[in-house]
Amino acid sequence: MSISLGPNQYGKAENRLVRVYRDTARHEIRDLNVSSALRGRFGDAHVTGDQKDVLPTDTQKNTVFAFAKEKGVRSIEEFGLTLGDHFLEASPAADGARIEIEEYAWQRIPVDGAGHDHSFVRSGGGVRTTVVNVDGRGDDRRAHVVSGLTDLTLLKSTGSEFHGFLKDRYTTLPETTDRILATSLVARWRYDHTDVDWDKSYDAIKALLLQRFAEIHSYALQQTLYGMGQAVLQQHPEVAEIKFSAPNKHHFLVDLSPFGVENPGEVFHAADRPYGLIEATVVRDDASDPGSAWHGVPGFC
Amino acid sequence: MSISLGPNQYGKAENRLVRVYRDTARHEIRDLNVSSALRGRFGDAHVTGDQKDVLPTDTQKNTVFAFAKEKGVRSIEEFGLTLGDHFLEASPAADGARIEIEEYAWQRIPVDGAGHDHSFVRSGGGVRTTVVNVDGRGDDRRAHVVSGLTDLTLLKSTGSEFHGFLKDRYTTLPETTDRILATSLVARWRYDHTDVDWDKSYDAIKALLLQRFAEIHSYALQQTLYGMGQAVLQQHPEVAEIKFSAPNKHHFLVDLSPFGVENPGEVFHAADRPYGLIEATVVRDDASDPGSAWHGVPGFC
Amino acid sequence: MSISLGPNQYGKAENRLVRVYRDTARHEIRDLNVSSALRGRFGDAHVTGDQKDVLPTDTQKNTVFAFAKEKGVRSIEEFGLTLGDHFLEASPAADGARIEIEEYAWQRIPVDGAGHDHSFVRSGGGVRTTVVNVDGRGDDRRAHVVSGLTDLTLLKSTGSEFHGFLKDRYTTLPETTDRILATSLVARWRYDHTDVDWDKSYDAIKALLLQRFAEIHSYALQQTLYGMGQAVLQQHPEVAEIKFSAPNKHHFLVDLSPFGVENPGEVFHAADRPYGLIEATVVRDDASDPGSAWHGVPGFC
Amino acid sequence: MSISLGPNQYGKAENRLVRVYRDTARHEIRDLNVSSALRGRFGDAHVTGDQKDVLPTDTQKNTVFAFAKEKGVRSIEEFGLTLGDHFLEASPAADGARIEIEEYAWQRIPVDGAGHDHSFVRSGGGVRTTVVNVDGRGDDRRAHVVSGLTDLTLLKSTGSEFHGFLKDRYTTLPETTDRILATSLVARWRYDHTDVDWDKSYDAIKALLLQRFAEIHSYALQQTLYGMGQAVLQQHPEVAEIKFSAPNKHHFLVDLSPFGVENPGEVFHAADRPYGLIEATVVRDDASDPGSAWHGVPGFC
Repeated sequence: MSISLGPNQYGKAENRLVRVYRDTARHEIRDLNVSSALRGRFGDAHVTGDQKDVLPTDTQKNTVFAFAKEKGVRSIEEFGLTLGDHFLEASPAADGARIEIEEYAWQRIPVDGAGHDHSFVRSGGGVRTTVVNVDGRGDDRRAHVVSGLTDLTLLKSTGSEFHGFLKDRYTTLPETTDRILATSLVARWRYDHTDVDWDKSYDAIKALLLQRFAEIHSYALQQTLYGMGQAVLQQHPEVAEIKFSAPNKHHFLVDLSPFGVENPGEVFHAADRPYGLIEATVVRDDASDPGSAWHGVPGFC
Repeated sequence: MSISLGPNQYGKAENRLVRVYRDTARHEIRDLNVSSALRGRFGDAHVTGDQKDVLPTDTQKNTVFAFAKEKGVRSIEEFGLTLGDHFLEASPAADGARIEIEEYAWQRIPVDGAGHDHSFVRSGGGVRTTVVNVDGRGDDRRAHVVSGLTDLTLLKSTGSEFHGFLKDRYTTLPETTDRILATSLVARWRYDHTDVDWDKSYDAIKALLLQRFAEIHSYALQQTLYGMGQAVLQQHPEVAEIKFSAPNKHHFLVDLSPFGVENPGEVFHAADRPYGLIEATVVRDDASDPGSAWHGVPGFC
Repeated sequence: MSISLGPNQYGKAENRLVRVYRDTARHEIRDLNVSSALRGRFGDAHVTGDQKDVLPTDTQKNTVFAFAKEKGVRSIEEFGLTLGDHFLEASPAADGARIEIEEYAWQRIPVDGAGHDHSFVRSGGGVRTTVVNVDGRGDDRRAHVVSGLTDLTLLKSTGSEFHGFLKDRYTTLPETTDRILATSLVARWRYDHTDVDWDKSYDAIKALLLQRFAEIHSYALQQTLYGMGQAVLQQHPEVAEIKFSAPNKHHFLVDLSPFGVENPGEVFHAADRPYGLIEATVVRDDASDPGSAWHGVPGFC
Repeated sequence: MSISLGPNQYGKAENRLVRVYRDTARHEIRDLNVSSALRGRFGDAHVTGDQKDVLPTDTQKNTVFAFAKEKGVRSIEEFGLTLGDHFLEASPAADGARIEIEEYAWQRIPVDGAGHDHSFVRSGGGVRTTVVNVDGRGDDRRAHVVSGLTDLTLLKSTGSEFHGFLKDRYTTLPETTDRILATSLVARWRYDHTDVDWDKSYDAIKALLLQRFAEIHSYALQQTLYGMGQAVLQQHPEVAEIKFSAPNKHHFLVDLSPFGVENPGEVFHAADRPYGLIEATVVRDDASDPGSAWHGVPGFC
C-alpha cells in the first residue's frame, strides 16, 4: 500500500488591513480583509517536516502590510494581483498563489451637508470581494480574477410568483401569485482578462444587479438570478461568467384567521432555517477557459 | 432555612415580523425583531408548576403578529407601548411588561434615478432599537421608553490623541497625538415622557451623534462620548439621559521598520480582541425618575 | 439647563489568556477570557479630556498577563479577586472594579487508555464564568463573587408537560402532557462570602444542576428552574441566591399526517426563533445584601 | 453573443431534525442538520421561469422529516444515501443529488452514577458530518460518501517546533523549538465504497485522529496533519483519501520582560486573526476515481 500527499495549500488568513491615504487633509481609507495561500511542491513540509521550502505565513502577513505602503492599495483586484505575483517570486516551490480580499465600505459622515474630511461611518449594502489566482511565472504566468459581492440583502414585497411546479406525495406547498421574495445575495463573476478598470466595473455591475432584481417580475428565484446574470454578461464584455448563491429567505404569511383578522399580504414571519438555496451560473458561450480561476472561491468551487 | 422565588420574567423573544404597507403601489415595509416579557406574581408557575396565571409565550407571539395588522406598525416606540399595555390587560398577574424591538433599515433600490416601488436593499448604518417598560394599569400606569441604536461603526483617521494618562509599573503604552479612533457604537437614550414624534426624534438624534463624533477633536473615547451625549441633551429636551457602550476598536500602526519602510500613519492592523470598552452616562440634572426604564435594556441595566 | 456625567466605567475586554503549568511533564492548562473595568471619579477624562486619573486599558491588559505568571491562575474566582484588589490599588480615582472571566474546559486526549501529558481537546458542556466586583480598599473593602455557567445545552425527550395555562383570544397553543424540553442554560449564583473552595463548589453545583434537570418531571421550564435552584441553595450554604436565563428552545412535533404517516413524539423540528425566554431568581430568605454583586453581570443586571 | 445557463443546483438547506427513538423507556436521540440539493436539466426554471421540472424545496423539507419516521435515522451516511436515491426518483430532471448532514452529539446526564433514560446534555468534541452525492439511477447509479468532522479544537502545550523555514526580506518570525500548537480541525474523508459500518468507522477514525495529534512530535502543522491522515489510510482500508483544513490558532508568548517577569512558555495570548490556514490531502495511490464525491463539500471543493 502506498500513500502520498495530494493537493495542498497554506497561507495566512484574514489579515485585517486598514490603509489610510492622508496626502491631503481629505483622507481616503480602504478597509480590507486579506488572505493569501500558496500551493505547489511542498511535500517535504508534510512528509518529513522539513520546512526549507516554506515561506512562513507570518512572512506572508508582513508582506501584506508592507505592500500596503510600498505598492499602495488602489483596487482590491490590483492589490491581489501584485501580491500573487510577489509570492510566486518569493517562494520557488510554489506553483500557484491565491489572494482573497474582502473590502468593507465606508461613507464620509455628513456635517452641514458635506462629507467630513476624516470621519467615516461604515455602510451596508454588501461586501466587495475578489479572489485572485496566479499560476506560474514569466511566460507561463496565468492570472485569474473572480470578483463579487456578499451580504447584499434584497427584498421584493410583491412581483414574485411561484406555481406550476412538480408535485409528489410529499408536496404540500400551495401555489402563489404574490409572495415576498428575499435573499442575501452572493455573486461572483470571473473576468475574462485583467485589463479592467476594476472599481468602475464593480460599481456598474453592482448597480445593474440591483436594478435587474428590482425590475424582473419573478416566477422563481432561479429565473430572477438568470435574468440578473444575463444582463451583466450583455453589458459587460469583460465578464466571462457569473455565479450566484442565493438563499431564499422565506417570509411566511402569518395565518391570523384564528383571531378573525384578515392578512392580505401584510404581516409576515421572516424565518431563519431551513431556507431554500439556489445556486446558478450564467456563462458566455465563448468564454475563455477558467483554468484555476475558481480555485478556493468560497462557496463556488 | 427558607427559600423563595425572587425577581422573574418570561416572554417570547425575537419574533421576526415584517409588516408591508401596500395601500398604494408604492409599498412601505417595516422589518422588526420583537421580544416581550411579563413580570409579576408568577410564584405558582415556578413553585408548584401551576400555570393558571401564565399567558403562554406562544400567545404573546400570536399577539405581536396580529397587532401588526390590527393596530399597525408606525414607530417601534408606539408599537411597543401598545403591546405593553395590552399584555398588562391580558395578564392579571403581571405587574409590568417589557417590549424590546429592533428595526432593520431598508432603502428603495434605485432604478433610473428613482427608488423602486416594491424592491428594497437593506442598509447599514446601525440598527434602531427601543425598550419599552410599562408598570401597572389605569391611574397607576407608568410607561418608560429607552430608544437607541446599535452596530453603528465609526472611524476617525485622525483628530484623536491619547496622552497624559496614569502610569504604573505595567504601563508600556506610548503616548500619541495622532491615532485612529474607531468604535461600534451602542447608544440608548431615555425619553423623559411619551409625547414624542418618535421617528423624527430618532432621525435627528442619530444625525447629531454622527455629526458630533466627526467634529469633536478627541482626547479619549470618553471625552468624545461625553460631547456626543451633551449635544443630544442640549438639543433634545425630550431626552432625560443617554448612555453609551463603545468598544475602542484598536487600529495598531504596523511597524514596517524591519523592512526599511516608513509608516507615517498609513498602514494599520484592525485588531479583534482584546478591545477597550468605554461605558458612560450623560444625564440632565433635573431628569425625571427613571423608575423601571432601564429594566432589561441589554448591556445597560 | 445643567448636564453632567452619570455612572461610567472603562476597561479592557476579552483578554484571551492561556496559562500553561509545566512544572512537570504532565502539563496543566487554564484557558481564560478576562475583562476588567474600573468605575469611580473619572469626570475629568470625560468632561475635559484630561486623562491623568485614567490607568490605560492597555495597562490593564498587561497586568492580566503579568499576573498570570506573578500570581498564577488557580480558580478564576481567586484570580478575579486578586486583579480587582490590585486595580483599586493602582487606580486611586477608582471606587470599584469589576473582573469578568470565562473559562473554557479542556480534556486530555486519550492515548492507549490514559490521558496524554500535553495534548488536549476542548470539551463541551458549558463555559464556566465568574464576575467579581470589589468596592473600596482596606477596612471599607467589600468583595462580591457571582459565578456560573453558560452554553449548557440540555434536552429531555419526555417528562415535560405544559397545560392549564391562561388563555385569551390570541391563544392557539394546544395543551400537552408530553413534549421535548430543551434549553441552553445560563446560571449565575452569588456566593454569600469569599471563603469558598471555588473549583470544588463549581463542580458540585454544575453536577447538581444537571441532575435536577434530569430528575424533575416538568410542568413548565419555570418549575424546572425553580427546582434546580432550590436544590443548589439547599445543598450549598455558600450560595446566597441563583439566577437563571433559559431560552425555551422549541422542538415542534412535525405534522406528517398529510403523508399518511403517524408521528407519536418521534420527529421534531428544532426551531431557531422566536423562542421562549424564562428568567428567574431563587433566593435564600436570609441572604446577605447583594451590594454591587450583580453589577455588570451580563444578562442579569 | 450567446449566453446560457451553466452548472446549477437548488434545494432546502439546514433542516433541523431531531429524531427520538422511544421504543423503550431508554430513549435515543439523533440531532441533525440536513441540507439537500438537486442538479440537472433545470434550464426552463431559470430561462423561462417555467417550474414544471422543479420539485419545490418545501417538498424536499417535508421528505426529510417524513423519512425520519418512514425510513428511520440510523447513521447519517445511510440516511443521506436513502434521501439521495429518493430525490433522484422523485425528480426526473435531476441528474444528481447532494445530501449534506451535520450531527450534534449528546450524552446522557449522569444521575447517581448512571446515564438518565431521557435527559441529555450536548457534548463538545466536534460535529460529525457527511456529504453524500448520488449521480444517476439504476445501472448508472454512482454514490459517493465523504464523511468527517468539524469544530474539533485541539491544543498541544509542547511538542511542537517550527524552524528551518524559507526566509526573505519580509521574514521576522523567530525560529522556535517549543511552542503551543492549536487548531480547530476540519477533516473530511472519502469512503472508497458504501459497504461500511458507518458509526463504527466514524468513531474509530475520530479516535485515531485525536491519538495521532497527541503522539506526533510536530515540526509544522503540515507534518502533523500528514501523519494523522497517513494513520487513517493505513488502518482504514475503507477510506480512499482524507482532506484537512486546519487553522493554526496562534498562541503568542507574552513578553513580560518590561515588568521584570520571566515567561518560560507559561503565559500566552490566544489571537483571533490573522491565523495560518493549512489545507492538505492524504491519498491512497490506488484510490478509486472520486467522481462527484467532493461536489459541494464545504471548504474542500
